[in-house]
Amino acid sequence: MSVKVLLNEDEIPRQWYNLAADLPTPMQPPLGPDGNPVKAEDLAPIFPMNLIEQEVSQQRWIDIPEEILQILYRWRPSPLRRAVFLEKALGTPAKIYYKDEGVSPAGSHKPNTAVPQAWYNKQFGIKSITTETGAGQWGSALAFACALMGLKCKVYMVRISFDQKPFRKMMMNVWGADCVASPSTQTQAGRDILARYPDTPGSLGIAISEAIEEAVTDKTGQTRYSLGSVLNHVLLHQTIIGLEAKKQLQKIGEKKVDVVIGCAGGGSNFAGIAFPFIADKINGADIEIYPVEPTSCPTLTRAPFTYDHGDVAKMTPLLPMHTLGHAFVSPPIHAGGLRYHGMAPLVSQAVVEGLATPKAYDQLHCYDSALLWARTEGYIPAPETSHAITAVIEEAKKAKEEGKEKVILFSWSGHGLMDLVGYANFMAGKLIDYPLPEDELRESLKSIEGLPKAPMVRSGRW
Amino acid sequence: MSVKVLLNEDEIPRQWYNLAADLPTPMQPPLGPDGNPVKAEDLAPIFPMNLIEQEVSQQRWIDIPEEILQILYRWRPSPLRRAVFLEKALGTPAKIYYKDEGVSPAGSHKPNTAVPQAWYNKQFGIKSITTETGAGQWGSALAFACALMGLKCKVYMVRISFDQKPFRKMMMNVWGADCVASPSTQTQAGRDILARYPDTPGSLGIAISEAIEEAVTDKTGQTRYSLGSVLNHVLLHQTIIGLEAKKQLQKIGEKKVDVVIGCAGGGSNFAGIAFPFIADKINGADIEIYPVEPTSCPTLTRAPFTYDHGDVAKMTPLLPMHTLGHAFVSPPIHAGGLRYHGMAPLVSQAVVEGLATPKAYDQLHCYDSALLWARTEGYIPAPETSHAITAVIEEAKKAKEEGKEKVILFSWSGHGLMDLVGYANFMAGKLIDYPLPEDELRESLKSIEGLPKAPMVRSGRW
Repeated sequence: MSVKVLLNEDEIPRQWYNLAADLPTPMQPPLGPDGNPVKAEDLAPIFPMNLIEQEVSQQRWIDIPEEILQILYRWRPSPLRRAVFLEKALGTPAKIYYKDEGVSPAGSHKPNTAVPQAWYNKQFGIKSITTETGAGQWGSALAFACALMGLKCKVYMVRISFDQKPFRKMMMNVWGADCVASPSTQTQAGRDILARYPDTPGSLGIAISEAIEEAVTDKTGQTRYSLGSVLNHVLLHQTIIGLEAKKQLQKIGEKKVDVVIGCAGGGSNFAGIAFPFIADKINGADIEIYPVEPTSCPTLTRAPFTYDHGDVAKMTPLLPMHTLGHAFVSPPIHAGGLRYHGMAPLVSQAVVEGLATPKAYDQLHCYDSALLWARTEGYIPAPETSHAITAVIEEAKKAKEEGKEKVILFSWSGHGLMDLVGYANFMAGKLIDYPLPEDELRESLKSIEGLPKAPMVRSGRW
Repeated sequence: MSVKVLLNEDEIPRQWYNLAADLPTPMQPPLGPDGNPVKAEDLAPIFPMNLIEQEVSQQRWIDIPEEILQILYRWRPSPLRRAVFLEKALGTPAKIYYKDEGVSPAGSHKPNTAVPQAWYNKQFGIKSITTETGAGQWGSALAFACALMGLKCKVYMVRISFDQKPFRKMMMNVWGADCVASPSTQTQAGRDILARYPDTPGSLGIAISEAIEEAVTDKTGQTRYSLGSVLNHVLLHQTIIGLEAKKQLQKIGEKKVDVVIGCAGGGSNFAGIAFPFIADKINGADIEIYPVEPTSCPTLTRAPFTYDHGDVAKMTPLLPMHTLGHAFVSPPIHAGGLRYHGMAPLVSQAVVEGLATPKAYDQLHCYDSALLWARTEGYIPAPETSHAITAVIEEAKKAKEEGKEKVILFSWSGHGLMDLVGYANFMAGKLIDYPLPEDELRESLKSIEGLPKAPMVRSGRW
C-alpha cells in the first residue's frame, strides 16, 4: 500500500489562494491608534509595499513568482503521506493523510512564508529584516530564507527560550543571522521593560515590540519587519500546503475529504492546510474543519472575538480577532508555537462564520498522541503538531465507532527533533497540564477593555 | 531548473547489490580466536542465521522482502537533489547531485539497515536486540526500527556521548528503547573496565563488547546483537542508496557519472552510494570514487590493511581491513560517526584493488564547507556529511579550473540538527584540528602486533 504521494516540481501550485476573496462576510479592517482603519502608507515603515498590497488584497488567486518557486523546490511540493501504521494500530477504517512540512530545511512549515517575505523585501530594495521568535521555529526559518537571499537578519528571541533552547539560536547563527535575547538593551521598548522587570522571562509581545522598533527607527530606510503568522499575507503564503494536498489527493483518486485538521497558534499552519478546503465548504462541500489549540491558551475555544493589539507594547495596529488579551502570559507548555494570545483575523472570521470548529486539548494528552505516533509511524512530531495528531486520533476512533471510511487530512507542521527535552520530561512524569482557569481568563481580558469592539458578524450560512 | 528527482514507491529497487560477488580478488575470510576461518555456526549466538547467510553470501543480487519495502517507503526512495545554488556560488560547470538520506525518521542513512536487521531478527524469532552507539545515530536508528517491529532494543552508548549529547538518548527513549552509558555495570566487560578505569569516557570498542556480551549471555536465546556498519550485510542493505541514485540519474538523462563521493567511518554510508558504481568501474566505466575520512582518524589513507578485531575486548572475529589498531582512541572530533578504528572489509578490499581512492580532511576545513553548504543550499549537514561535501567542493573547483562539466554524485548521509553544538563551537573559534601524529599512529598499531596478517591481495587491474 502506498504510504506517500509525491508531486514533481512542475506540478507545484503556481498561485496562492486568498480566502479573503471568498469569505461570506467581509473582513473588518485593522485600526490605527486613532480608531480609524489603517491605511497602506501607515504600514510602510514596517513592511515593504509589495507585501502590504498582498495584505490588503481581495484577489482570489495571487501568482507565485518563479524565483520564489525555485527556492521552494528545495523541499516542495512536500510529501503527502498516509499514516497506514497508525490506522492499523487504531483499527480504524479511516484513511489518515498528512502533509509533511517537516521536510523543509528549518523543519517546519515556516519557510513557506519566510522565503516569499524575504524575496519581496529584497525586490523592494530592503537589505535587512528584523523579527521576533518564541521557541525559534520562525526565527530559524527567516534566518534560512535571508541567508539564501543575501539579506541581513536580526531575531529577537524570547529570553526564556533563548536560555532554555539554545539550539534554535545556533541554527540561526549557522544561517548567518543575529539572534539576541528579548527584552534586550538594544531597543527603547526592551530597555523600558528591563528597567521595570529586570528578571522578566520575556514574551512574544515584547519581542515583537523590539523587532518593530528596530525596523522603523533604522535611518537608512532599508530595514523592515517580518511576522511569521497572524497576518493575511503570511497565511496566503501557507496555502500552498493545502493546494498541494488537493492535487495529491486527486492524483490517487481520493474524491472527497471528510475532515481537515491543523494546529493553530497564530493560525498560519492551520490556514495553510485548511483554507483551500474552506473554499470548498463555502461552495457547498461537506467537510469538517478543525483548528486545534492547547487548553492552556484557548484563543478560539474560549476567548472573545474583538479588536486587540498583536503585541504587549501596543505597537501593532488593532486587529479583529479571537484574543485572550494582549497582556496574556501563556503557561510554559512545550508547544511554544501555540502560546500566542491572539489568532489570525482570517482564521478568527472563518470560525465566527462557522466554517471551522475549534478544538482544544491538554498537553499530556497530546504527548500521549505524539508517542503513539512516533512508535507506529516513526517520525517524531513537534509538540505543536501533536495537538493536530490528538484531534486526528479522536476522529479516527470516532470513524471506527461509526464504521465509516472517513478521509482525514492534517498538516504535520514540523518535526520534534529540536523538542526532545519536552518528550524526556513527559516520559519522566515531570509535565503537567495548565487548563486556563476562568478567573485568569477574566483578568487577562481586562487588557482589551476600552479598545474598539469588532462585532461578531456572520452570514448565518453555517 | 529542477533541483530534485523523485521516484515513486513502485520505482524502488527490489534487490540489494552485493559487491562481494564482483570484486576481482575474493575477500579474505574472518578468523576466529584460533586463527581459523570463522564458521557460520560460530556467529549464531551473535546474529540470526538469516543475516549470517547474507553476511557470507556471494550472490550478486539479493531480494528485498516486501515487508521491508513497506517500511522503507516511509522515506524511500529518498530524493536525489541537485545543489544548483552551491554550483552557482562556486561558479563551477560541474553538476552536483546528492542523495538526501537525512529524510529518514532518524535523520540519517542508518535506518536503511536498521529496518532489515530488525525484520530478519524478528523473522528468526528474536525478541530483543542489543547494540552499541557512539554519537547516537545508529542507536536511534535501531530504536526506531525496533519500535516499528515490536522488538525490545537495548543500546550501549559511549559514556562521553551519553553525557554530552543527551538528545540522541531521548530519541531512543521516544522509540521505547533502553539506552545506558557504556561502560556500564550491567556486563562483565563493563565492570572490568570500570574497575580498572573508573573515569573512562568509554569507547565504541568497549560498547560493542558490552552489547555482544548481553546478547550471547541471554539464557532465553531470544536476544541477538546488531552492528550499524562494517559488516558485509550492513553494507549490502545500504546499496539501495546508490541503486536509487542510478535510476534517478537515468530518469533525468544523465548518462555518465564522473565522480562518486561518500564519507567513510565504518564504511556503510560510502558503500551505500558507491558500490553500485564500483560495479560499473569493474565493468570498465571511467569513474573516480572517493571515500572521505577525517585526518584525525585516517584509517584508509594511513593505516595498514591487516587482520584486526572490531572491538577493544577482542570479542569480535578478526576482520581483514584497514585498521589503526583496535586500541586506537580517536580525538574528540564532532563527526562521531567517523571515529572508528577500522573500516569495512569490503570497502578496504575495494581500496586495496584501486577501485576507490581515499581522501582525508581536517575538521575545520569540513566545517567551513558545511557553513558554505548551509548558506547556499539551506539544509544543515551532519559533521560526517561535511567531509563528503569538502571533497565535493574540491572536485567542483577542479572542474572549474579544467573547464569540465563533470557530474559529481555524493551521499548526504544525514542532517546536522542534532549536532548544532559543534557548529556553535566552530563559529566561536573553539574547535581545533587533530591530524594524527606519526608516533601516535605507530603506538596505536602495536595493538595489532601478533595478530594474523591479511596480505594486500590485488588483481592489479586498477
